[in-house]
Amino acid sequence: MIDTENMTRFEVIFDAEGTNRSKFRNDVKVHLRGPYAVSYDLPTDEGGIHGGDGTAPYPLAYFTSALTACVMTQIRAFSRRLNISIDGFSVKTRCHWQARQRSKAPYESEPVAFTMEVDIEGEASETDKRRLLAAAQKGCFVEQSLKPGLVRHRLKVGERWVDA
Amino acid sequence: MIDTENMTRFEVIFDAEGTNRSKFRNDVKVHLRGPYAVSYDLPTDEGGIHGGDGTAPYPLAYFTSALTACVMTQIRAFSRRLNISIDGFSVKTRCHWQARQRSKAPYESEPVAFTMEVDIEGEASETDKRRLLAAAQKGCFVEQSLKPGLVRHRLKVGERWVDA
Repeated sequence: MIDTENMTRFEVIFDAEGTNRSKFRNDVKVHLRGPYAVSYDLPTDEGGIHGGDGTAPYPLAYFTSALTACVMTQIRAFSRRLNISIDGFSVKTRCHWQARQRSKAPYESEPVAFTMEVDIEGEASETDKRRLLAAAQKGCFVEQSLKPGLVRHRLKVGERWVDA
Repeated sequence: MIDTENMTRFEVIFDAEGTNRSKFRNDVKVHLRGPYAVSYDLPTDEGGIHGGDGTAPYPLAYFTSALTACVMTQIRAFSRRLNISIDGFSVKTRCHWQARQRSKAPYESEPVAFTMEVDIEGEASETDKRRLLAAAQKGCFVEQSLKPGLVRHRLKVGERWVDA
């Protein structure tokens, strides 16, 4: 029998308007609505070598920060919920895509591998660090939106790096 | 026989280091390496109601901008490659996730639906606008990294909105 008595759900919704007038500058405004509403101007551009004017970060720079920080936010949040004491922590992320094109036709892109190296400071045991990282992966909104198996995690245990 | 003579590939790699010292502030630096190297400081925080200090955008705000702008960048780039004349254009995106939790245990999250409404100005035909949007979807690095079927697109044709 499944205990659903204490099961709760909550919704998370962000929306955005983007406008482009010419070239590669995109003016993008992002909103969190509701009682704690907040909006951000998060424009993007391409660098000069890619035909842009370099007036703002690449879209993929935002993506890479989002993936990195989403997992980090869950590590912090869930360390409290799981009562696992941690100090500071750091994550190194690498997002690798490939694109194929024939002459000047539009290219088709695909992700190759996204890797995250997670170094959690503090006296928590390897078991607890693994438990915390596993929970963070399941809670991470960005990671749960990605193709299954795309993100690989490594965890620092003492001086070793282990798959986690 | 497949003509691979003019097929070329290229790699796209972004990497990041994130550090967290306490609470929900994540300092994240993102890099594009190589001959056209550029780096960005893209920190994140949670709002006060979520336990943070509101010093920077939510990770999901960056994600929403990245998805919106990635498709927009391909629309602009591929309008040239496909020789489809367009003026300005705009995209409205809505990213909807859900999370489930039992009491104060770590929650598990999942995406519900991501929708993008694309309005391309200019005299291009419906056929050409559809062709352009279809190419942009295949080229979009962010969208190709997401779970298949997650993103739905609608295209403005005259005064109507159609699935595309």
